[in-house]
Amino acid sequence: MAFRFEIRLSGSGGQGLILAGIILAEAAGIYDKKYVVQTQSYGPEARGGVSKSEIVISDEEIDYPKAIKLDLLLAMNQGSCDEYFKDLKEGGFLAIDSTFVTSIPAKGAFKIPFTAIAQKELGKKFVANMVALGAISQITDMISTKGIEAAIIARVPKGTESLNIGAFKAGIEAARNIIKGLPNK
Amino acid sequence: MAFRFEIRLSGSGGQGLILAGIILAEAAGIYDKKYVVQTQSYGPEARGGVSKSEIVISDEEIDYPKAIKLDLLLAMNQGSCDEYFKDLKEGGFLAIDSTFVTSIPAKGAFKIPFTAIAQKELGKKFVANMVALGAISQITDMISTKGIEAAIIARVPKGTESLNIGAFKAGIEAARNIIKGLPNK
Repeated sequence: MAFRFEIRLSGSGGQGLILAGIILAEAAGIYDKKYVVQTQSYGPEARGGVSKSEIVISDEEIDYPKAIKLDLLLAMNQGSCDEYFKDLKEGGFLAIDSTFVTSIPAKGAFKIPFTAIAQKELGKKFVANMVALGAISQITDMISTKGIEAAIIARVPKGTESLNIGAFKAGIEAARNIIKGLPNK
Repeated sequence: MAFRFEIRLSGSGGQGLILAGIILAEAAGIYDKKYVVQTQSYGPEARGGVSKSEIVISDEEIDYPKAIKLDLLLAMNQGSCDEYFKDLKEGGFLAIDSTFVTSIPAKGAFKIPFTAIAQKELGKKFVANMVALGAISQITDMISTKGIEAAIIARVPKGTESLNIGAFKAGIEAARNIIKGLPNK
């Protein structure tokens, strides 16, 4: 049966969510050979300091490229969590940056301090987006970890590959520690 | 009356068309305050070495974010020109990189050697995408030249701003020279 998997990366401008979206899309499309459409909106649609990047993945051609009911929502700040939680499918994955999101609307959320990890382990807050990609690679099997790693290397500015991959690996480890502790694992 | 303006930037992977698309979208959305959706597709859809990035601009919320009938097509290689010319609206603008596109399907095309200009004037072929943005800023009034310049500065890697703006200005000049020579100007 055909599948459709919808991801929204949300937070504030400057958190690198467009780049993160392009990396996930390239990983799924080029490395994992799925159909992918990646979208971002600007202008009055992207107001209130909330930035979003969407990725729709399917095994067949994608007619409607905007996300309708999210399978995975990443919220990197409180505003985006508040605004977009309602778009998450029942049983969908919610991942939040617990550095900034303190009021969490769902019990089963993956609460990981992406920005604090980026600062503490890499000394650079701005690679929090890569920490989040590492976590996403563990939360869902939809996109391969290898594909994301290859897309990161292809897309980040030359000379910053090891910093970004280090952040990605820190995100993998943080998510694994949470998943290990889940009751059904 | 509501308007909808559709742009497709096409060429091969590595020509920087995703970044160019993001810059146009940010210019129109953030600086010019229009509704904008910017999209790219990967996977089996983006095959044959043809890469594309689409921008849809409107004065109202955009329901369908994929381009349907193009108002402006940028073709940076022969393959993308051959594949996408059929999607151009009658009277739509066609801009081609005459460094690579030699078989041109329309009389009124803007033929500018973006890559040759980038190499000759900036010494860097990879800023051909910025030369193309300069030309686009002159071919249509839909996105402001100031907005594109601001978005370039915001989006290119730190330290490469003047190189990229130099390429943008070279594209403006090349397009102006062509437009000056048009019969109805």
